[in-house]
Amino acid sequence: MATERTRVDAEKLINFSTKALQRLGVPEEDAQITARILVATDLRGVDSHGIVSLVPFYVRGIQGGRINAKPETRVFNQAPSTATMDGDQGLGFVIGHHAMMEAIHRAEKTGAGFIAVRNSTHFGAAAGYAMMALERDMIGIAMTNPVPEVVAPGSTKPAVGTNPLAVAVPAGKKPPFVLDMATSVVAAGKLRVAVKEGTFIPKGWAIDKEGKPVTDPTKRVRGEGGLLPLGGTPKFGSYKGFGLGVLVDILCGVLSGSSASILRRATKGGTTPIGTDHFFGALRIDSFLPVENFKKSMDEMIEAFEALPKLPGVKKIYAAGGYEAEIEKDRKANGIPLNAKVIQELQELAKEVDIEYDL
Amino acid sequence: MATERTRVDAEKLINFSTKALQRLGVPEEDAQITARILVATDLRGVDSHGIVSLVPFYVRGIQGGRINAKPETRVFNQAPSTATMDGDQGLGFVIGHHAMMEAIHRAEKTGAGFIAVRNSTHFGAAAGYAMMALERDMIGIAMTNPVPEVVAPGSTKPAVGTNPLAVAVPAGKKPPFVLDMATSVVAAGKLRVAVKEGTFIPKGWAIDKEGKPVTDPTKRVRGEGGLLPLGGTPKFGSYKGFGLGVLVDILCGVLSGSSASILRRATKGGTTPIGTDHFFGALRIDSFLPVENFKKSMDEMIEAFEALPKLPGVKKIYAAGGYEAEIEKDRKANGIPLNAKVIQELQELAKEVDIEYDL
Repeated sequence: MATERTRVDAEKLINFSTKALQRLGVPEEDAQITARILVATDLRGVDSHGIVSLVPFYVRGIQGGRINAKPETRVFNQAPSTATMDGDQGLGFVIGHHAMMEAIHRAEKTGAGFIAVRNSTHFGAAAGYAMMALERDMIGIAMTNPVPEVVAPGSTKPAVGTNPLAVAVPAGKKPPFVLDMATSVVAAGKLRVAVKEGTFIPKGWAIDKEGKPVTDPTKRVRGEGGLLPLGGTPKFGSYKGFGLGVLVDILCGVLSGSSASILRRATKGGTTPIGTDHFFGALRIDSFLPVENFKKSMDEMIEAFEALPKLPGVKKIYAAGGYEAEIEKDRKANGIPLNAKVIQELQELAKEVDIEYDL
Repeated sequence: MATERTRVDAEKLINFSTKALQRLGVPEEDAQITARILVATDLRGVDSHGIVSLVPFYVRGIQGGRINAKPETRVFNQAPSTATMDGDQGLGFVIGHHAMMEAIHRAEKTGAGFIAVRNSTHFGAAAGYAMMALERDMIGIAMTNPVPEVVAPGSTKPAVGTNPLAVAVPAGKKPPFVLDMATSVVAAGKLRVAVKEGTFIPKGWAIDKEGKPVTDPTKRVRGEGGLLPLGGTPKFGSYKGFGLGVLVDILCGVLSGSSASILRRATKGGTTPIGTDHFFGALRIDSFLPVENFKKSMDEMIEAFEALPKLPGVKKIYAAGGYEAEIEKDRKANGIPLNAKVIQELQELAKEVDIEYDL
């Protein structure tokens, strides 16, 4: 049954994934970084960007030469608070981790740190990097510009990627504020899920090459029509979602010395461009005000949201990240639910790279 | 006739407004800063946030004691790249200008500068401050958290303001990228215009206290129901618009040492809170890559957008700020169109403060 799900322990899943990546030539530390971020994403309930992608995206990417298992990253144009980095087409997780640490080190010294990264690959969910700032009492920022799938208002051809933007902000007793949003109405993953499950999608998520709403997700051909920017139509503010998407592309693509994704060319090992750029930032809270004052004020804000009147059927008003924190608590205690197809993929991976399947 | 519009020269309008503000006790330099930003907003076609507000918002605010004509601003917690500022309830334009200059000075030294400002007042359109970065080859950022008017998804009571966020990015031959967006479906001004003009608004902009769509804008009572966050409903991503609004509130209200706007109390001179907070940022482009490479890459991106296929009836695909740049060119040459009501207000103001009406 496709809906059957097995609970798997997070630490075991990290160890297994680390070993598998090492067998593909990824150095131990890099394999660990990658596995930890993937599993942390599953722990927070963002299943679309977690371990489900290990085999199809990352294992196959390394085997196909589209992802460099042993990148030599370089940092350029260093200023006290800023730098650019070339990721040498390495695993996006590894590049992202190191770039975010560069931003954090700069923020430790000056209060703010920003790193634009070119020539990287898919880094999973943006939140994982932004959240690295939390335990250091900083505000973390992470963005990326994948392949264009989102149309500009007034056009029918993709102009920007779903260009997610994540910001993580520590609170006190309350869970941290963690916003991680595609700048399109929905993330591309929601269409892929609908294709897999054979369901229709609501009018207002995507259009075809004539600008008509797409409800059958299989009718969307890449490069013709596309997802709509957040807001949907100009009357409801789609130029805002598009503007945010372009902003992410400027910070990731243009500022890193790569280019906006609409101009991106095919990278080595494939005819379609898999390469992508990122942007990371960190702001040190105590360079603005005492951390304890800040956290108390965050808690008060979140409590005020929770005390708002609720529409019928609404149990709780969450600030961003609050719901994911509840899922994380459950999954840390009871394991990560994986469906049969993913389990099978991991079992086959174990055989393929000759490691024990011990999940 | 309400629709009759007179073209007024921008420089004359700046001089007139400067003199009027001086008569109210605003120092000459501060009056000039305020007048320049107001008129620059009109020049770009953003009539809702320009000179139309001079008398009702700012003149009456100063006269009523809600705006401090001679603020003593203070800068705290200085780090090489960051600081907080207390605006002493001064004119938001003056506070905003000085805070943005603080951010720019820090970016000159370290590559990045960020200033969180508490205890300020309404600063007009956010773009004016972000655009101060352009001539210095920096990326500029400006945000503010006005009084809550936007509901949280699942609730019916305002939780955040329309919390605009502006980012300005220089280009080469092309106009700069200037995104200036409320994080709600529409800015509050659009409802006020509909009230004034007696027109209905589309379903999906606002809800009443039961969560039902409001189409008669006069039916919305402040504090009951409110504007919807960008995205409109959860199915179309309203938690993203709400998340962005909360983020702006965190950076402006919490990080400055004020509070999220939902917790804001009445400030001096009035029973409703007019006070507001801001957040400003600057990133120096040449601390990432050579400026000429960046600008060339921006131009290429904008040209690629312009070359996209267009839906019937669409003349041009703009990047954010491109349309406003065309309006600015016309208005700089031919004057700013003001309607009869505004002209009358300015004539009455001239009499009231005893200056010549010379527009």
